[in-house]
Amino acid sequence: MRLRHNPDAPEFLASHPDIVEQNPENYRGKWQELFNNDHPLHIEVGTGKGQFVTGMALANPEINYIGIELFDSVLFKACEKVIEAGKPANLRLLKVDGADLEKYFSKNDVDRLYLNFSDPWPKSRHAKRRLTHEGFLKLYEAVLIDNGEIHFKTDNRGLFEYSLISMTDYGMKLNFLSLDLHADEPEGNIMTEYEEKFSAKGQPIYRVEAQFIAKK
Amino acid sequence: MRLRHNPDAPEFLASHPDIVEQNPENYRGKWQELFNNDHPLHIEVGTGKGQFVTGMALANPEINYIGIELFDSVLFKACEKVIEAGKPANLRLLKVDGADLEKYFSKNDVDRLYLNFSDPWPKSRHAKRRLTHEGFLKLYEAVLIDNGEIHFKTDNRGLFEYSLISMTDYGMKLNFLSLDLHADEPEGNIMTEYEEKFSAKGQPIYRVEAQFIAKK
Ligand SMILES: C[S@@+](CC[C@H](N)C(=O)[O-])C[C@H]1O[C@@H](n2cnc3c(N)ncnc32)[C@H](O)[C@@H]1O
Ligand SMILES: C[S@@+](CC[C@H](N)C(=O)[O-])C[C@H]1O[C@@H](n2cnc3c(N)ncnc32)[C@H](O)[C@@H]1O
Repeated sequence: MRLRHNPDAPEFLASHPDIVEQNPENYRGKWQELFNNDHPLHIEVGTGKGQFVTGMALANPEINYIGIELFDSVLFKACEKVIEAGKPANLRLLKVDGADLEKYFSKNDVDRLYLNFSDPWPKSRHAKRRLTHEGFLKLYEAVLIDNGEIHFKTDNRGLFEYSLISMTDYGMKLNFLSLDLHADEPEGNIMTEYEEKFSAKGQPIYRVEAQFIAKK
Repeated sequence: MRLRHNPDAPEFLASHPDIVEQNPENYRGKWQELFNNDHPLHIEVGTGKGQFVTGMALANPEINYIGIELFDSVLFKACEKVIEAGKPANLRLLKVDGADLEKYFSKNDVDRLYLNFSDPWPKSRHAKRRLTHEGFLKLYEAVLIDNGEIHFKTDNRGLFEYSLISMTDYGMKLNFLSLDLHADEPEGNIMTEYEEKFSAKGQPIYRVEAQFIAKK
């Protein structure tokens, strides 16, 4: 997501350290210190305007959430949403690049990883930038618990086809698959901004839960 | 597919031994003798009225095809189609149960297996009857060459979701995946009867090519 450049965003984000963690590298291997409990940690890479991660944090107070977003101007919106939601204690945002996950998380830090409506990068020469490319799967595996899961939703058919192949080629197991999520009327599904937009147009939403299989 | 019972079907099928092989068990391990060449053999399980397998046989004379169908009255229609098509020398039909594949084929007899619009058996208690259930995958592996492929098309979302999970759980590799085959305008796609019907209604057609991985 690219929003119009917001020159106030960096200052706004810096002035909310209780929402946007400013020194995430300090918590590598010890996020429990930040949340002050030993609850599981779920992260979303590519949080956008934050509706999903905020909704999840409110719905599941016994789980800690971190939303990761690359762009200041987008995270600005997410930060506003978190304020509106009353700053849930189990939620933080990071303005970092998902490609740098290992700088901020070490093995076993993360219990589950969410990807929602990730940028499709349809050209094959950009395949490496897709958040389900083998290179990213390696990163996720390096910060997740053994047998950790990725939960991925998208409207983008090409990206979803690619992702199923990429994930299973990687040796991941598919635990759940829907090729029309909203037709299944899933209980407790929390919609993202993109999901609301595309499902309103009648487009099918694809969803998969894929699990890394620990090598023995 | 269940057609109205056709009392003439058994006699009709028996009277066309050049199309419907009457003693397939005799060719187990030596189908090349029947076709009188050493071309690859592709089989379709659940051929229905035979449009796909006949079209494939006409389009690919260097490949041998066998269409397998459970019901007399349905195979009757397929047999008529083969006659109309001029009885291609590289095509045979079998009125047998796909569950008995090993009676008629031994390991390495089959180079590729097609499933098209297989009965969905939506109730979980009938999962074992789905032609992509683990039990059937085992059978297919037992008659295919090493690293042999299954090419599967369907309009049925539930069956397709199930099949992707079943195939990858089995350890199969996904080589090709489309969640809207006709949007991709695939070159040389030969439509089945069901495919014509459902794609005309605007329903997406799903297609996967999945490959068995030989155990070393
Ligand atoms: C298409 S938007 C979807 C936003 C939101 N998840 C939704 O479903 O509504 C994708 C978001 O991922 C962010 N993004 C893309 N690549 C990223 C990366 N490497 N690290 C962090 N965020 C990234 C983009 O900036 C954008 O906000
Ligand atoms: C829904 S129809 C589809 C027919 C055709 N493949 C098409 O796409 O138009 C499925 C066909 O598979 C046949 N069939 C189902 N189970 C079978 C089995 N175990 N062995 C052989 N044929 C079977 C049915 O009789 C039916 O004709």
